[in-house]
Amino acid sequence: MNETLRPRGREQEEARLAALLEALRASAPQRDLAGGHAAAEKQRIADAGLLTIAVPREFGGQFGAASGAQSGDTASAGLRWSDVYTIIRKLARVDSALAHLLGFQCLQVASVELWGSPAQRANWLQGTVEHRWWWGNAVNPLDTRLVAQSDGAGGWRLHGKKGFCSGTYGSQMMTVSAHDPATGNPVFAVVPTTRAGIAVHDDWDPIGQRQTDSGTVSFENVEVRAAEVLQRPDTPRATLRTLVSQGVLTNLFVGLAEGALEEARAYVLANGRPWINAGVQHVADDPYLQQRFGEMRVQSLAAAVLADRAGALLDAAWQEGEALGAATRAEVSLAISEAKIVAHRAALETGEQLFEACGARATGAALALDRFWRNARVHTLHDPLDYRVRDVGRHTLLQELPQPTLYT
Amino acid sequence: MNETLRPRGREQEEARLAALLEALRASAPQRDLAGGHAAAEKQRIADAGLLTIAVPREFGGQFGAASGAQSGDTASAGLRWSDVYTIIRKLARVDSALAHLLGFQCLQVASVELWGSPAQRANWLQGTVEHRWWWGNAVNPLDTRLVAQSDGAGGWRLHGKKGFCSGTYGSQMMTVSAHDPATGNPVFAVVPTTRAGIAVHDDWDPIGQRQTDSGTVSFENVEVRAAEVLQRPDTPRATLRTLVSQGVLTNLFVGLAEGALEEARAYVLANGRPWINAGVQHVADDPYLQQRFGEMRVQSLAAAVLADRAGALLDAAWQEGEALGAATRAEVSLAISEAKIVAHRAALETGEQLFEACGARATGAALALDRFWRNARVHTLHDPLDYRVRDVGRHTLLQELPQPTLYT
Amino acid sequence: MNETLRPRGREQEEARLAALLEALRASAPQRDLAGGHAAAEKQRIADAGLLTIAVPREFGGQFGAASGAQSGDTASAGLRWSDVYTIIRKLARVDSALAHLLGFQCLQVASVELWGSPAQRANWLQGTVEHRWWWGNAVNPLDTRLVAQSDGAGGWRLHGKKGFCSGTYGSQMMTVSAHDPATGNPVFAVVPTTRAGIAVHDDWDPIGQRQTDSGTVSFENVEVRAAEVLQRPDTPRATLRTLVSQGVLTNLFVGLAEGALEEARAYVLANGRPWINAGVQHVADDPYLQQRFGEMRVQSLAAAVLADRAGALLDAAWQEGEALGAATRAEVSLAISEAKIVAHRAALETGEQLFEACGARATGAALALDRFWRNARVHTLHDPLDYRVRDVGRHTLLQELPQPTLYT
Amino acid sequence: MNETLRPRGREQEEARLAALLEALRASAPQRDLAGGHAAAEKQRIADAGLLTIAVPREFGGQFGAASGAQSGDTASAGLRWSDVYTIIRKLARVDSALAHLLGFQCLQVASVELWGSPAQRANWLQGTVEHRWWWGNAVNPLDTRLVAQSDGAGGWRLHGKKGFCSGTYGSQMMTVSAHDPATGNPVFAVVPTTRAGIAVHDDWDPIGQRQTDSGTVSFENVEVRAAEVLQRPDTPRATLRTLVSQGVLTNLFVGLAEGALEEARAYVLANGRPWINAGVQHVADDPYLQQRFGEMRVQSLAAAVLADRAGALLDAAWQEGEALGAATRAEVSLAISEAKIVAHRAALETGEQLFEACGARATGAALALDRFWRNARVHTLHDPLDYRVRDVGRHTLLQELPQPTLYT
Repeated sequence: MNETLRPRGREQEEARLAALLEALRASAPQRDLAGGHAAAEKQRIADAGLLTIAVPREFGGQFGAASGAQSGDTASAGLRWSDVYTIIRKLARVDSALAHLLGFQCLQVASVELWGSPAQRANWLQGTVEHRWWWGNAVNPLDTRLVAQSDGAGGWRLHGKKGFCSGTYGSQMMTVSAHDPATGNPVFAVVPTTRAGIAVHDDWDPIGQRQTDSGTVSFENVEVRAAEVLQRPDTPRATLRTLVSQGVLTNLFVGLAEGALEEARAYVLANGRPWINAGVQHVADDPYLQQRFGEMRVQSLAAAVLADRAGALLDAAWQEGEALGAATRAEVSLAISEAKIVAHRAALETGEQLFEACGARATGAALALDRFWRNARVHTLHDPLDYRVRDVGRHTLLQELPQPTLYT
Repeated sequence: MNETLRPRGREQEEARLAALLEALRASAPQRDLAGGHAAAEKQRIADAGLLTIAVPREFGGQFGAASGAQSGDTASAGLRWSDVYTIIRKLARVDSALAHLLGFQCLQVASVELWGSPAQRANWLQGTVEHRWWWGNAVNPLDTRLVAQSDGAGGWRLHGKKGFCSGTYGSQMMTVSAHDPATGNPVFAVVPTTRAGIAVHDDWDPIGQRQTDSGTVSFENVEVRAAEVLQRPDTPRATLRTLVSQGVLTNLFVGLAEGALEEARAYVLANGRPWINAGVQHVADDPYLQQRFGEMRVQSLAAAVLADRAGALLDAAWQEGEALGAATRAEVSLAISEAKIVAHRAALETGEQLFEACGARATGAALALDRFWRNARVHTLHDPLDYRVRDVGRHTLLQELPQPTLYT
Repeated sequence: MNETLRPRGREQEEARLAALLEALRASAPQRDLAGGHAAAEKQRIADAGLLTIAVPREFGGQFGAASGAQSGDTASAGLRWSDVYTIIRKLARVDSALAHLLGFQCLQVASVELWGSPAQRANWLQGTVEHRWWWGNAVNPLDTRLVAQSDGAGGWRLHGKKGFCSGTYGSQMMTVSAHDPATGNPVFAVVPTTRAGIAVHDDWDPIGQRQTDSGTVSFENVEVRAAEVLQRPDTPRATLRTLVSQGVLTNLFVGLAEGALEEARAYVLANGRPWINAGVQHVADDPYLQQRFGEMRVQSLAAAVLADRAGALLDAAWQEGEALGAATRAEVSLAISEAKIVAHRAALETGEQLFEACGARATGAALALDRFWRNARVHTLHDPLDYRVRDVGRHTLLQELPQPTLYT
Repeated sequence: MNETLRPRGREQEEARLAALLEALRASAPQRDLAGGHAAAEKQRIADAGLLTIAVPREFGGQFGAASGAQSGDTASAGLRWSDVYTIIRKLARVDSALAHLLGFQCLQVASVELWGSPAQRANWLQGTVEHRWWWGNAVNPLDTRLVAQSDGAGGWRLHGKKGFCSGTYGSQMMTVSAHDPATGNPVFAVVPTTRAGIAVHDDWDPIGQRQTDSGTVSFENVEVRAAEVLQRPDTPRATLRTLVSQGVLTNLFVGLAEGALEEARAYVLANGRPWINAGVQHVADDPYLQQRFGEMRVQSLAAAVLADRAGALLDAAWQEGEALGAATRAEVSLAISEAKIVAHRAALETGEQLFEACGARATGAALALDRFWRNARVHTLHDPLDYRVRDVGRHTLLQELPQPTLYT
C-alpha cells in the first residue's frame, strides 16, 4: 500500500533496487555459510542509492521534510519511514543481515537528525550524501564498559569497549555512547570510524545474521571533540530514535517471514514431490501442504499489516516535529511493539515451517534454507519478547501511558 | 482509522449509537440467557437509524454512491462498507447476535443493490428507508429443501423449507432462494415476510448467537411475482454479495474478540484479586495477567487490522462498479479470507482467555461471560475454517485466481 | 493399564459401573441445562458402590491398606489411588459434575484417613460404609469468612460462611475448616451436615459444572465437639491430601477431554456430511477432519498418560505411609502439576475442537455439546494455571524441592 | 522408570556410559560445526559395549530372549527395546547424530533377528559380538535407483545407488534393499561393506545431524550370495522392523528435547542475567523465564512418557514372538505414532525456546546451541508429520486397524 503512495519518478530506483535484490538473493546462501564482511554487497547497496533514504531532502537525501509536508504527498515530498521500512523489508526477504546494515545506517542518520544541532545535521547529513558514508555504531546500552572522561572543554576521551556494534566494521562514520562515571550521565557522540584509538574487531561469529559486522569495538584514549557531542533534547520527539530502531527490527522480521515463504514456494514448485500416501498426483494438490502455505501466508501477512500500521503512525508522529506529544509518541510505541510481537513469531515460525513444506531434501547445507530461522532466531533476541508482551498487556489493562525506555 | 474518515455531521448519529451500545451491553447477559426474539432492541436499532446504513444515498439511505465518488470523501459521499463494518464491529462488541441481524440487514440490502433492476432497487431500497423494514432471508445454499415451480409467466410458486433463516422472524421483507427442479437453476427473489403461505418458525435454540432469529421458514404454495424475481448478473460485481456477507462475519468475529477483551479488563479492574502466590499487591501488577492481556490485545488487534485492510479493498472494488474485474474481485476475496481466519481464532481464543484472566468467580451464570466464546463458537461454524485456510494456501502456492464460490 | 492390575472378582462392579455410565451419559445434556441437584443420580452412584472406593478395606471399604501391601497386588489388596482416579476419569467422560462429587467424596474420606485419630478413622470410615454417607465440605482456604471460637474444652463454635462447598448440599457428613482469630490457626473438623446452625444454600448457578452443588454454607453458632476436631500431623504424608485433591481435578480434566473426543466421534459418524468443497464421498475421509481427530487424540492421550504416571507415583508415596519423605512427596506434587497443566489444556482444547469437527448443526442447545468446554472452563479455574507452570519451571531450573502449598 | 527395572550388575556399564556421554557432550559443538565422520567417537561407543545392546543374549549380546522371558525380569533376562531406547535417548541428549548411528546399528541387528534364518542370525549376530561390527544400510525405500539382477542360483547382482545411507560410511556390515525389475519384488540382503563394487560416498552435508554419515552408496555389479539374502516372513512380527525404526526416531526426538532443556538450564544458571525491566535480582527469579522452563519441561516430559508407553507396548509385542497378531502390532504402531508426533514438536519447540531462555549472547557460533533445532529439523523430516497425524486421526475416528506401511 505504501508503494502506491511512493513518489513518481522512482521507476529507475525501483529497477535498480530489483536488480540489487535479485543479486543478493542469489548469493545469500553462500554468504551465509561464509559469514564475514560483505564488502562488495555493501558497495552495491551504496551504488543503488540506498545510503541516503533516511537523509532529509534539504541535505540532498531522499527523506521528506519533518514538518510542513502534507498527507497525499507528491513526488517532491520525499520518502517517509514507511517507505524506508518497505525497502528494508524487501531487502530482508533476500538477506536480513544486509537489511540490518541498511536499517542501522538509517538509524544513525535519524540519530543525527533528531539529536544534532543545525550545524551537526548539515555537516553529517550532507556528508553522508557527498561521501556516501556507511554509518556504524557503538551504542549498545546494556554494555557499560565504555567510559568517557571529560577534557574540561566540552570534549571527551573514551576508554573501553562496546559489543554488538553492528555495521561498524567497514563504516566511515559512527555513533558512540559512553558512560561518564563522574556524573553517571551518558555521552553520545559522532566520530569518524578511523579516529585514532578506535579498533574495530572482526569477532562477530554468530549462528545467524552472520554478515552484520556486529563485533566488538575498542577505544583507547579516543578523542571526542566538543563539536562531535550530540545533545539529546528532553522531548518526546527525541525518543523517536528508539522507535525508528524498533521499527527497523520489526520490518526485518516481516521480511524474513515473507522471504521464507517465498523460498518455500519456489522450492516446492521446483522440487516438490507428493508423499507416497498423499493420494494426489501433484505436490501442490496436497491438502496439508496447502494448509501449511495458508498458515504461513496468514501469519506473515498479519505481521506485515501490523507493521504497516505502525509505520503509518510513526510517519504521522514524525510529521508533528517538535510539537509531538507524549501521548502520540506512546501510541506509536505500542503500535510498534504490537507489530514486533507478531513479526517475531511469524519470522521464527515461517522459518521452521518452510522445511515441513519442502521436505527432507531441502536440508542440504549448500541451500542454507535454515538461514531464515537462524537469522530470525538471532535477531529476535535483540530484546526479550516477554517484556514487550507484558508492556502491551499492562497498557491494555491499565490504559496508562507507557514511559519511553531503551527498547520501547 | 475508518472513523477519522467518517463524514462530518454525524456527531448526533455517533451519540445515538453510543447510547444504543451502552444499553445493549447492559442487557446482553440477561438476553443471552433468555434467548428468543429481541423485539425491543431491534426497535432501538431501527430508531438509531441503522437500518439504512447500506442503502445508497440516492434512495434516501446513508451509503455512498457506487461510482463517481472519490477517495478523500467528504461528508456528502456517504458511508462505505468499511464504515458499515465498523458499526457492525462496535455492535458485536456488546451483542454479536444483534450485530448479526444488522449485518444481514445490510447484506439483503446489498443483494437488492447488486442484483436488482433499477425499478426493484428504487422500490425496495426506498421502501427500506420509508417503512424502516427489517430484512430477513431464506437463502441458505446448503439447504435444498425449498422448491420453485414456474407459473409460466415469470413468476413462481414456492414449496418447502429453509433452515438458518437469520433475521426473518420479526422482519417485514425477505430474500429467498429456491431450486427449480425443471432446470436445476436457482431462483432468487424478494417477498414480504407476510406473504400468504410463509410461516416463520420460532425454533432457533442454539448454544450461542441466541437472538439471531435463525430458525426455519416454511413455504406452502407461496406466490412469487415476476417483478419480485432478482436476476443475478453474470459479472464479478454480482459475486460481491458473498464478500459482503463474509465481511460481515469477519467483523462480527473481530467485535467478539474486542468485546471479550473489554469485558475481561472491566471485570479484572472491578473484581480482580492477586493470586496468593503472586507476590504482588495489586492484581494488575501480576506478570502473567499482564501477559494474558498482551496476548489478547495482539490477537484481537491483528484481526482488526486485517479486517480493516479487507474492508478497504472491498470499498475500492465496490467503487469500480460494473467495471470490476475478476482479478480485483479475487484479491478482495483472499483478503477477506485472510482476515476471517485470524478473526475466527481471535474470537474463540479471547472468549476462552477471558476466564483465565478473570478467575473462578467470573463463571457465575448470571454474568454470562461465556457468551463471547459461545457466540464465537456458533458463528465461526458458518462455513469451515479448514477449507478457507486451504484456499488461501493454494493461492499462495500457485498464484492462481480463486473462483468465486458460495462462501469465498 | 491400571485396569489390568485391578483385582479380580470385580466383574460385577464393572458391569454396574458401565450401566451407571451409560445412564448418566444419556441424561447429561438435559441435566446440564437444568442444573441444580442430581439427587437420583447421586443415589445411583451410591447404589453402584462407589461411595467407599477410597475407604480402606479394614473399615469395610474397597481401598488397599496404606502399608504392607506389595506391588503386584492380588485381589485382596484393594484399590489404589490410580484405580480411584480411573473411575473418576470414566465418570468425567460422561458427566464431570458428578465426577467431581465422587472425587470430593474420596477427598473427604482421605482427609479422615490422613488426619484422623484411630478412633476418628474407625468411626467415620466405618460409618461411610454402613450408612452410605455422601460427604460434603466447607474448606475453601481462600474464603476466610468462617471463624472458630474455642469453647475452652477442645471444642469450638463456628460463625460465618464458606463458598464453593462442593457436594455439601445433599450430604450427610462434611469436613469444615475455620479460622481461629485468637491464634491465627486453622481449625479442621468433621460434622454432620444436619448439625444445628448449618444452612446449606442452593445458590450454585455457574456456566459449567452445574450439578456439583458447590454453593455457600453458612454457620450460625455451630457446635464442634472436641472429638470432631481433626489434628493434622506435621508430616509429609499429611500433605498428601492436597495431592489427592489435585489428582482428582487432573483426572477430571482428562475425562473431559476423552469424553469430548468420544462425543465428537459419535456425532460425526452419525450425522457428519462432507463439506461441499472437500472432494470426498464420506465425511470420515475428509483430510482435515482426520487431522483434527488426530490432534484431539494425541492431546487427550498425552494428558492421560501423564495423569497415569502421576497416579502411580502417588500410589507409591501412599504406600510408604508415615515413612514418606519430603523429597518423594515433592516428586509426586510435581508429577501431578505436570499432568494437570497438560490436562487443563487438553480439556479446553478438545471441548472447543469438538465443534470444528462436528459443524454448525452440532450447536443446538438441546445437544448441550458445549458442556465439555463449559465444564472444563469452570473447573480449570480452581487455581491458576500460570502459577503451576511457574512452579514446574522454577523446579526445572533450580532443582530445589518445592514446598507444599494449599494447591501443590 | 525403565532404569529401575534394568538388570543388576550393570553399574560398570552405567559408569562407562556416563563417561562416554560426558565426553560426547563436551565435543558435540565442535563436531557439529566440523561435520564429517566421527571415527574416534564411534570407537568410544563400541568400547562402551553399545554395539550389542540389541543382539540377543543367545548370540553373546545383551538383549533379552524373544519369548519365555517374564515380566519382572531378573538380570539374566537381558535388555528390552525400552532399555535400548533409554540408551539412545541419553545419547541423543548430548549428540543426536551419534544416537542415530547407534539406533540404526540396533535396527540392522533387529532386521537380521526378525528376517534372518537361524544360520543367518547365528552368523551375523555372533559376528557382531565377536568382531564388533558397526552396521550400515542402503535400504531407503523411497530411493528406487538400486536394481537387483538374479544370478539364477538364489544370488543377485546389484547395480545403482541409494541415498540417505546412514552409518554406512565406516561400517563393516550393511543391509541393502534393491528392486528386481523382472518381478517387481524387493530384494533384501546383508553384505560386508567392503564387498567389491560398493563405494560409500562422503557426500553427506546437511544443516543438522551432520555426523550421521548418511551419504550415498553406489553399487557396481555387486555380488550378493544366496546365503546373504534375507527372506522377510509374511507375519505381523516381521513388520516390527518398521516400528523398531520409528521408535528409534521417536526416542531421538525425546533426547533432543531433553538435551536442549538441559543445555538451556546449564547456560542460564552459568551466564544468565536478569533483564533490565524484570525487577528481579537473580535471573532464575524471572517469572517469564520460569514459565518458559515450565513449558519446556512439560512438553519434553509428555514426549518422554508417551515414548515410554510405546516402548513398553513394543516390548510386550516383541515378547509374543511369532504369535504376535495384527491387532497388537497395530496398537504398537499407533502408540509409536502418537509418541512421535508429540516428540517431533517437543524437539523443535525446545530447540527454539532454548534461545528465548538464554538470550542474545547464546547465539555465538562456537557454542552451536542451534544444533538442537537443526538436528531436530533435519531428523523430523524423515517422513511427514501430517500423514502420521492423519493416520492417528483416521483410526480414532473409524477404529479400523491401520495397515503396516513403510513408515508406520
